[in-house]
Amino acid sequence: MTRQFLGLDLGGTRIKAVLLLADGTIIAEHQVATPKNRQIEDVLHALTALYARFRDMSFTITAVGIGAPGLIDRNGQRVRIAPNFPSWRDVPLQDLLQREVEPPVFLDNDVNCFAFAEHRWGAAQGFQNVIALTVGTGVGGALIINGSLFRGSSGAAGELGHISVDLWGPECACGNPGCIERYIGERWFTLAAQETLGDDSIASPADISRLAQKGDLRAEEFIVGRGEILGVACTSLIHALDPEIIVIGGGIAQAGEPFFRGVRKSINERAYKILADQVKVTPAKLGTIAGAMGAAALGLNQVENP
Amino acid sequence: MTRQFLGLDLGGTRIKAVLLLADGTIIAEHQVATPKNRQIEDVLHALTALYARFRDMSFTITAVGIGAPGLIDRNGQRVRIAPNFPSWRDVPLQDLLQREVEPPVFLDNDVNCFAFAEHRWGAAQGFQNVIALTVGTGVGGALIINGSLFRGSSGAAGELGHISVDLWGPECACGNPGCIERYIGERWFTLAAQETLGDDSIASPADISRLAQKGDLRAEEFIVGRGEILGVACTSLIHALDPEIIVIGGGIAQAGEPFFRGVRKSINERAYKILADQVKVTPAKLGTIAGAMGAAALGLNQVENP
Repeated sequence: MTRQFLGLDLGGTRIKAVLLLADGTIIAEHQVATPKNRQIEDVLHALTALYARFRDMSFTITAVGIGAPGLIDRNGQRVRIAPNFPSWRDVPLQDLLQREVEPPVFLDNDVNCFAFAEHRWGAAQGFQNVIALTVGTGVGGALIINGSLFRGSSGAAGELGHISVDLWGPECACGNPGCIERYIGERWFTLAAQETLGDDSIASPADISRLAQKGDLRAEEFIVGRGEILGVACTSLIHALDPEIIVIGGGIAQAGEPFFRGVRKSINERAYKILADQVKVTPAKLGTIAGAMGAAALGLNQVENP
Repeated sequence: MTRQFLGLDLGGTRIKAVLLLADGTIIAEHQVATPKNRQIEDVLHALTALYARFRDMSFTITAVGIGAPGLIDRNGQRVRIAPNFPSWRDVPLQDLLQREVEPPVFLDNDVNCFAFAEHRWGAAQGFQNVIALTVGTGVGGALIINGSLFRGSSGAAGELGHISVDLWGPECACGNPGCIERYIGERWFTLAAQETLGDDSIASPADISRLAQKGDLRAEEFIVGRGEILGVACTSLIHALDPEIIVIGGGIAQAGEPFFRGVRKSINERAYKILADQVKVTPAKLGTIAGAMGAAALGLNQVENP
């Protein structure tokens, strides 16, 4: 019997589900809105219903993986804190879902799942040392070191959105001034674009990108400049970790080519030449489904390396 | 026969040598001035003479390790570039010394050697995830990840002095603005102290420390402030790597307790609380001989894991 792996990507607004085979072939996908109250009972109910939906379609699910935002404990059992789910503190999500479904359940951080998927099937395939960044509402990160996800000493490694590029900079929601998230997280990106371009109608990075594509040079320059700021953090990470590739995904993909051009420009101007020359900087490949695919890969990893 | 390991630490001004046993016991040490012209022939002659000195004292040397500044290739054969030895480009130092001495020769970066020694016998003993920093003329770093030194994809990982804490900051010698080295490398540290305190007689971090110890509150505040700047970079590294311990060595140890207080203050104010609470920040333990001890450990590692 062919093994099928269900991946659930729990986001602040949507829960995405994907069922795939070991080679990454997607058999089915579905998504639902995240319960607005974001309470654990309702979220759990939504996750269980998604599982049941696939099971009732006569799929035989080998394992269920969940990617959840926030800090996950090293054992993959609890969501310790999750900024988008403020009522969650030390929620034993793995166990709670395991009580509701038959196949084994695995839990990991959503950005780790993104990195797993891009490493296994996407832009980072075949690389041993990878920096993965997701730039959306927040900025998340994950590190693949010597071919494996690096979790750090308490499971929190890869909080790359909270690298400070300006010690005197504006304060991030986390309390640290100058965090990269404070410049390129969608909300801040958009606010800064409104200010810089004097245009209150800009509502998203996609809006700015449209302006740039229509030939608005100031809009393009703004996007390049934001990329350059991320490039400063990337340069620090290159000097620290000497990676082969930096993969950038998330909503920022909407900002398009000028953003990546800015990142590259900054790295070329700032990083040691021999390191700048060798590191690849590339958009993620798998799109918005990467997180759910990586969640499915959690079960797959377990089957392969029990 | 008890095995004896020679370690040579090649610095810009001194070459330090130490002979030790597998348990880290130091049998003998010696140091000489680095040839002023810093040409490879003269440096090689000095290294060979140091080896001969120990050999002629009837020590039986199992292996010779060299710690050298700059970028070392992944195979431990060449010094690719070394800022303090500007004429060196792709110098096959391992092979050159091997032709002159009988025991097997091993080469690594000097800061990696510092980290090996502190991890094996010093402040980082027993920890799996370690950030090691040496703050002297330059600022160097090394990462121990899952118990082993992490070299990155081209052997250059750990260039922690070139993490930028201010994208608008003053330009570092490497060309990148706001590098931590530009604030706390000895020369910059001293210059900034002269300016801040309006005292041209300050010639080293030790001078500033003496002022602070005599009760000069502005001097103390200056030192704390420099520690805080390093703390900004440490916070970024904590968010990226979630280490158990940060070990800081090098000449900056002369700046003493207020410097470490500044680092800690910055981390406590800026880093995620659960990460700040768990990470240790501590001075290195082995003093100025750590680099040579770690160079000796290169041979020791090889004997243990051939």
